[in-house]
Amino acid sequence: MKAGVVGIGLIGGSIVKDLRHVGSISKIYGTDLNPEHCKEALELGLVDEITSLTEMIKKTDLIIISIPVDAARNVVVEVLDQINDHQVVTDVGSTKSGICKAVSVHKNRGRFVAGHPIAGTENSGPTAAIENLFLNKTGIICNREETDDDALEMIEGLYQALGMNIKYMEADEHDKHIAYVSHLSHISSFALALTVLRIEESEENIFDMAGSGFSSTVRLAKSSPDMWKPIFQHNSEYLERALDGYIDQLHDFKTFIKHNKTEDIHQLMAKANDIRRILDGKVKD
Amino acid sequence: MKAGVVGIGLIGGSIVKDLRHVGSISKIYGTDLNPEHCKEALELGLVDEITSLTEMIKKTDLIIISIPVDAARNVVVEVLDQINDHQVVTDVGSTKSGICKAVSVHKNRGRFVAGHPIAGTENSGPTAAIENLFLNKTGIICNREETDDDALEMIEGLYQALGMNIKYMEADEHDKHIAYVSHLSHISSFALALTVLRIEESEENIFDMAGSGFSSTVRLAKSSPDMWKPIFQHNSEYLERALDGYIDQLHDFKTFIKHNKTEDIHQLMAKANDIRRILDGKVKD
Repeated sequence: MKAGVVGIGLIGGSIVKDLRHVGSISKIYGTDLNPEHCKEALELGLVDEITSLTEMIKKTDLIIISIPVDAARNVVVEVLDQINDHQVVTDVGSTKSGICKAVSVHKNRGRFVAGHPIAGTENSGPTAAIENLFLNKTGIICNREETDDDALEMIEGLYQALGMNIKYMEADEHDKHIAYVSHLSHISSFALALTVLRIEESEENIFDMAGSGFSSTVRLAKSSPDMWKPIFQHNSEYLERALDGYIDQLHDFKTFIKHNKTEDIHQLMAKANDIRRILDGKVKD
Repeated sequence: MKAGVVGIGLIGGSIVKDLRHVGSISKIYGTDLNPEHCKEALELGLVDEITSLTEMIKKTDLIIISIPVDAARNVVVEVLDQINDHQVVTDVGSTKSGICKAVSVHKNRGRFVAGHPIAGTENSGPTAAIENLFLNKTGIICNREETDDDALEMIEGLYQALGMNIKYMEADEHDKHIAYVSHLSHISSFALALTVLRIEESEENIFDMAGSGFSSTVRLAKSSPDMWKPIFQHNSEYLERALDGYIDQLHDFKTFIKHNKTEDIHQLMAKANDIRRILDGKVKD
């Protein structure tokens, strides 16, 4: 089987890095708008050959679209226009309603698998690609009933080869939950970086005092604006709701601190501690 | 030299764990209000002997107070009341104005070193103590001019033995900067956990979708409420100012998202990205 990856960055690059070890993949083609990324992807051995999208569609069985979600929406249609009914195309975007709507009545809709392998780092580009990025992570497949059985099976096999646990969701449901759990974290981190950069005049103090947790909390603020801009745009409705809740919560803290309501603050923190149990996997139904 | 540690948790425990390898320390005494912690500290070999505070003061050359900042304020006075002019006492608290004020006119003020080794994890208790927690971190010493030269030298030696870079600050200045860089991060993380716990009905979704950065951003929300309650209380003024700035920043994001001002969002994120340079140590004066 021959695979192609459109966008050879952190996610696309990490996928094909692991696919190297999958026996059924004989060749990997890549394409990227950034010529430097193409060069690096070849040098790093992420792909065997750089090709145009048109050529890739002619030569491959599977195409993985791993580019910002606004561009992905167009490219998936372009690919679906040209593929035959044995080829499969999937995406990795962090919002799923838009892309699912864009292809919903396409004659080749069945060849598309709307995917979201939930993993990442704050880095980007081919040099950010790492092995085992997806190991033991969750891979979400949306609107599976709109996908042909054989296409679904191929992507399920791909996710399993990457070591992911597969979950199925409707696109809108996915977008809601991911806004609350992932997209909000990114905004909270970007806003934290901006606040500290503005309020703290001394860069040296930021560096010196970052030991105590700031580095971890602000890590996502290093993420790519090009990638995140369209995600926030596509998921604006749920994100607004999440931000409202977050700002309310911060106001509670501020009020309690202002009025020295220490027991209330203690209670809030004790409640927040419960996140440890959930992240340790001890979840209640 | 004999040392004593009051409060054998994450910080106190990690300090004495590393002090084991310092040749000049011949014996380590410990005391903790929690009998279970005393037992664990002995079992883990963090301390050689559990003793009362009064006995510890009689037997040791150096006393390290590593308990919540409200309790530390009282204990440091109690220790200063009883020590001779060769003994040294230091603390590790994350707020420094209160403790410095509490001892400012004490006859033994010179024997106290107001310290803040800036390191930690989200865990607590003796089992959370780890080696090299302070390696290459910053150790801040406040109001050094109020400390006797020999006492200052002893603690500088201790910080160096732990691998820390030493910085000097006035207590109030310390509290302001640490509110902006560290304390705000903790509130942002506690509030993020609370928001997600409230808005996301499904614990399973939180667990499944946490791969994409949520875990890192919310890590500090696992921190001990007993430790953080008095910190927020002591540093309420600067923390309120930091929270105001943070909430304003989040409002900017919300407004831009609501009105689809994607270029403004992109600009905010690009600006936030600058935090990478600073955390990589490439600071401007």
